[in-house]
Amino acid sequence: MQQYTTQMDAAKKGIITEQMKAVAEKENLDVEVIRARVAAGTIAIPANKNHKALDAQGVGQGLRTKINVNLGVSGDLADNEMEWQKVQTAIELGAEAIMDLSNFGKTHAFRKRLIDAAPAMIGTVPVYDVVGYTGKIVNDLTYKDFLAVVEKHAKDGVDFVTIHAGLTRHTAQKVLDNPRQTNVVSRGGSVLFAWMVHTGNENPFFEHYDELLDILARYDVTLSLGDACRPGSIADATDAAQIEELITLGELTRRAWEKNVQVIIEGPGHMALNEIQANMILQKRLCHGAPFYVLGPLVTDIAPGYDHITSAIGGAIAAASGADFLCYVTPAEHLRLPDVQDVREGIIASRIAAHAADIAKGVPGARDWDNAMSRARQEVNWEKMYELAVDPKKAREYHDSSRPAQEDTCTMCGEMCAMKTMNRILSGEAGCVKL
Amino acid sequence: MQQYTTQMDAAKKGIITEQMKAVAEKENLDVEVIRARVAAGTIAIPANKNHKALDAQGVGQGLRTKINVNLGVSGDLADNEMEWQKVQTAIELGAEAIMDLSNFGKTHAFRKRLIDAAPAMIGTVPVYDVVGYTGKIVNDLTYKDFLAVVEKHAKDGVDFVTIHAGLTRHTAQKVLDNPRQTNVVSRGGSVLFAWMVHTGNENPFFEHYDELLDILARYDVTLSLGDACRPGSIADATDAAQIEELITLGELTRRAWEKNVQVIIEGPGHMALNEIQANMILQKRLCHGAPFYVLGPLVTDIAPGYDHITSAIGGAIAAASGADFLCYVTPAEHLRLPDVQDVREGIIASRIAAHAADIAKGVPGARDWDNAMSRARQEVNWEKMYELAVDPKKAREYHDSSRPAQEDTCTMCGEMCAMKTMNRILSGEAGCVKL
Repeated sequence: MQQYTTQMDAAKKGIITEQMKAVAEKENLDVEVIRARVAAGTIAIPANKNHKALDAQGVGQGLRTKINVNLGVSGDLADNEMEWQKVQTAIELGAEAIMDLSNFGKTHAFRKRLIDAAPAMIGTVPVYDVVGYTGKIVNDLTYKDFLAVVEKHAKDGVDFVTIHAGLTRHTAQKVLDNPRQTNVVSRGGSVLFAWMVHTGNENPFFEHYDELLDILARYDVTLSLGDACRPGSIADATDAAQIEELITLGELTRRAWEKNVQVIIEGPGHMALNEIQANMILQKRLCHGAPFYVLGPLVTDIAPGYDHITSAIGGAIAAASGADFLCYVTPAEHLRLPDVQDVREGIIASRIAAHAADIAKGVPGARDWDNAMSRARQEVNWEKMYELAVDPKKAREYHDSSRPAQEDTCTMCGEMCAMKTMNRILSGEAGCVKL
Repeated sequence: MQQYTTQMDAAKKGIITEQMKAVAEKENLDVEVIRARVAAGTIAIPANKNHKALDAQGVGQGLRTKINVNLGVSGDLADNEMEWQKVQTAIELGAEAIMDLSNFGKTHAFRKRLIDAAPAMIGTVPVYDVVGYTGKIVNDLTYKDFLAVVEKHAKDGVDFVTIHAGLTRHTAQKVLDNPRQTNVVSRGGSVLFAWMVHTGNENPFFEHYDELLDILARYDVTLSLGDACRPGSIADATDAAQIEELITLGELTRRAWEKNVQVIIEGPGHMALNEIQANMILQKRLCHGAPFYVLGPLVTDIAPGYDHITSAIGGAIAAASGADFLCYVTPAEHLRLPDVQDVREGIIASRIAAHAADIAKGVPGARDWDNAMSRARQEVNWEKMYELAVDPKKAREYHDSSRPAQEDTCTMCGEMCAMKTMNRILSGEAGCVKL
């Protein structure tokens, strides 16, 4: 009965899917625009056929910037309930994607629970799970093991998977030939690097790429091509290894599209502010307009404890310059796994960056939210301000914690409130509005 | 015995002052470069002759981006000791400037204590203090009252004063002719607007500008020309009133320089990310290269409780595009007066923005800090990472709060630490580094 395999296959055949309709409605765009862009690969709609709870979202050209929340069970913090609270926080705050980075023991139960419950797109990095899934040590793994874990995740209903297929032996050699400050900082990338050094083999996902694509096409899993060579310090940004890998990712993108597998490209990382725009242009060109998913960029290395801020700066600039999807970064980055409060702060910082970028890139309707807020400010309407705030709870708590003598102001300016002064003058209450 | 009146007078006469030497040393620049730029007005060294505790800083062309901390005693929060803790926080975290915005009762004692103790540049907004100083209500004030409070602050040793001399009757009319979402949100500006409407007079600082300049020159107070028409919402940014005022500020800049008064220009405000660079170019052109001091810019209106982040995004872009001086914004902005923790978060967010911009604009040595941090990361040297962190205390607390099983990693990746994996491979411990 099904007339298509993947969203991209449908789009190429001119079929409008339910998911395309849902995206068009959310974005206030014509569904034909969505279809054409999915066909061209400039929009991805990660929607595994087995993820029944999904409320489909689009990522890419002309759409609102989306954000992703990382969480998952690990060996050092195997607290399923705490991770579940993070899931609830992500859903409450409207994150469009959740990546389950569980890498400890049998990860299936948590993943299953997540996919059953979450309307957000679910992503994973199957390599994190390969040791737990196969019960082998890294050096004993075969390429079949790597593909088997991908197939397991695909079958479970994961909407997008990060695969570091661009870290070929050729690219790995570039890392050695062009010494870096912080080498390879991608966890998945470093595992593959170690495996290639140990076994002498080519990257399993690169060597057996067609087999990988067949698995992904079967379930309509979107391929998120990982950047193993993303810079881990601003010193390493935009270097030979990073760009070499990006060239390969562009080639792999075309091959995926030929098999109707949707693609997202992952990007940096740590990067000086003035290099971000050039990197967005480079990715869009080399990867043929595929959606760009960035981790940060973090615009300085010196702020552990505040990397939600360093990445909000970089993420806002990246998204304003073309990035489509931001991976959140929490205050805990570089220091520990985030707790629930860290997750909350990370999501809000990321949401602010995405929204600031949407205003800048002229996403239709983006400014409406700001205009409503500034109207509430002009009217000194506190309830309305709370309601419109990105975090209503914090806004209310802050204002309530410090009461002004004049109830309709705040303690910042008190009776010197410029809004009230101007409203009085402009309404003519002061006796004269004439200058 | 003194051969010059102000730093600018000295610079024009070819005299190298102690303050110029101090700035040259801090910035690793030739003192002759500093002198020439002070003479041209593109660098200001706010240094009141009566501020004996000052450790002079330069603001402007080619220098490190500086940050300012606002604090002060107000009617709703007249807690001198809490404000003093904010002073200590600002000094501890190395803020280069502190603005004392006290506006309640007799402000002299707090200002005096601050000037006696602080090595940072001290700024004030004399208009906030005019009611308290004169004991009159706003409508009864004369131009002499406005100048008297400026002279009092100058005599007390304030290094720079914000004066909204650009809000002329002509500019005020532009506000009325070009309706705004949030009218005038500058406290000082709204007081002057009200006074002009009530009395029918011209802006006292504009009408008696030469007299004002004579006072400032006498003590070498730097004139920080306030932007009464700064946008209070992204909808109002870059509008007729804002730009009309900026044109006037440019004209006033030249007149100040003719009298050897140093000038800083104040800027927005709320502003969409994509408008920031154009605003920096416009200010530098219209104000003849005078240093630019920005409040924010806040790149969205919707994040009360997180405006340290919205302004870190805008501030980083602004400073990378030419702004020289960032006024911090705390999480409490738009909601209440900040407490000490808010002040701390505001300073650090602002410091991050300034540093990210310094990297981007190529301030000599700016990257050294990042390189040292990323070396420590590559070596997995935690003590060194804490030491180099913008907030060593928070970095240590975060890492210590969540101990990994492998002591030399962190719980973020644990045994999957990419740094450790790569160090093992590259050192040859894994047996083979050959690909």
